[in-house]
Amino acid sequence: MTNQPKGTLIIIGGHEDKEGDRAILTEVARRARQDSGRIVIITVASQEPEELAKDYQKVFGELGVKQVDVLDIRERQEAYDEANIEKILGARVVFFTGGDQLRITSQIGDSDMFKCLRELYYDGGTIVGTSAGAAAMPETMLIGGAGDPSNRVSALSMAPGLAFAHNVVIDSHFAERGRMGRLLGAVVQNPRNLGIGIDEDTAIVLERDDCFWVEGSGAVYIVDGQRISYSSLSEENPEGVVSIDDVTLHVLGKGDQFDLHKRRPIRDGQVE
Amino acid sequence: MTNQPKGTLIIIGGHEDKEGDRAILTEVARRARQDSGRIVIITVASQEPEELAKDYQKVFGELGVKQVDVLDIRERQEAYDEANIEKILGARVVFFTGGDQLRITSQIGDSDMFKCLRELYYDGGTIVGTSAGAAAMPETMLIGGAGDPSNRVSALSMAPGLAFAHNVVIDSHFAERGRMGRLLGAVVQNPRNLGIGIDEDTAIVLERDDCFWVEGSGAVYIVDGQRISYSSLSEENPEGVVSIDDVTLHVLGKGDQFDLHKRRPIRDGQVE
Repeated sequence: MTNQPKGTLIIIGGHEDKEGDRAILTEVARRARQDSGRIVIITVASQEPEELAKDYQKVFGELGVKQVDVLDIRERQEAYDEANIEKILGARVVFFTGGDQLRITSQIGDSDMFKCLRELYYDGGTIVGTSAGAAAMPETMLIGGAGDPSNRVSALSMAPGLAFAHNVVIDSHFAERGRMGRLLGAVVQNPRNLGIGIDEDTAIVLERDDCFWVEGSGAVYIVDGQRISYSSLSEENPEGVVSIDDVTLHVLGKGDQFDLHKRRPIRDGQVE
Repeated sequence: MTNQPKGTLIIIGGHEDKEGDRAILTEVARRARQDSGRIVIITVASQEPEELAKDYQKVFGELGVKQVDVLDIRERQEAYDEANIEKILGARVVFFTGGDQLRITSQIGDSDMFKCLRELYYDGGTIVGTSAGAAAMPETMLIGGAGDPSNRVSALSMAPGLAFAHNVVIDSHFAERGRMGRLLGAVVQNPRNLGIGIDEDTAIVLERDDCFWVEGSGAVYIVDGQRISYSSLSEENPEGVVSIDDVTLHVLGKGDQFDLHKRRPIRDGQVE
């Protein structure tokens, strides 16, 4: 295990296509077929784990993945269960479904299962997350506090995430739920974190925690706060509008690439 | 009439408070009381002009405006009617309600009534617009084409507006309807236009087409495309995601000021 992971994160903004061109899930399946031919679906975030597991088993089966295992974790002790950990050890692709991101971190965080997942990722495996599974990827994750209007720059709650991705904060269902305000609010808290807003049926494929490219039908919004020249954020004013000057914003579509270290889109014809 | 208007535009993102602190309508009423004591409500955009007129007559009456006239224009010829034009000539504050911005421009655009409104504005009067009335203020206005998902960077339609405000494009109900994508789409078409997205119960008070300040409970988002270094927009790809690099974004709250000519927020302590 080194500081620089060798693996890939596929971070999906939710509602990835399961019946049409299935561009994102095809990319996931391709990786599973290449390696062990196995994928593990982790439904810990979901209130309807059985239904969700069935859906993904069907679609990954159709996409030629030989073995689709399900880890239906409902209590924290199951994240220490040897039979469950065996499933992770045999896989090269693990898929976190949607649901509630705090269920993911509270049930799996720091468990034996988490350590295996981390090893898998640092060793070259692929970790996939959609919706809540996407939001949970960074060191710090956005959570929807009760009644938070997700459109306000001020209103947001954060919690410690799985820490597979570094120096980013990720929001899903981005355009569909009008979450620009929420992502701005997260970035302005500490501009060290680059904000990444991912539309539904859209994913970033992030290799080695370094560069990513975009797959799927929607857009990816990058909110870079490095050049913010003024912000009114303070603990004294948690509810009001936060004023912010000089945010840099990029919009990326399918096939576009982005360099997380340079914080720049990579365009054809540019020397990289 | 000169090139530089002497008047004020109060541009409201819709759903301005009518029962609580009424901060925005209080500012409108203050101006009406200062001048002739009269305000004219123009309901041309609305499908329910009578109800809307009644609401505004009630609230402006409560706020101490002596005379509240209503112009219920339903056909274009009424915008040439002398009795209607008399009402405009006697007022210093005119208020466009919400509804359909194409109704405003198609029924009033270039009419005798419009010429009086323009004269009023250039001569120092106040023109107020909320929702559709806000969107109609610039030279080019955003319209919601049938079925346009307003969150996509690609999907938008534009039409010629009233041209009271210059080099801007305005969207209302901004955070509430997740319209960042739509405003980005408008700005990327021609970055000459600064994008201004106004939340509900929020307004900009724009003096002499030069500087504005923010009133109300929400945020104003400024989308500046002047430094865009790449965009994939073309007529060949009208439906797909538009990729854009290096948009500058500012978020303003109540009391914040912005210089439209310099395209900069005005902050305390800055030499201006």
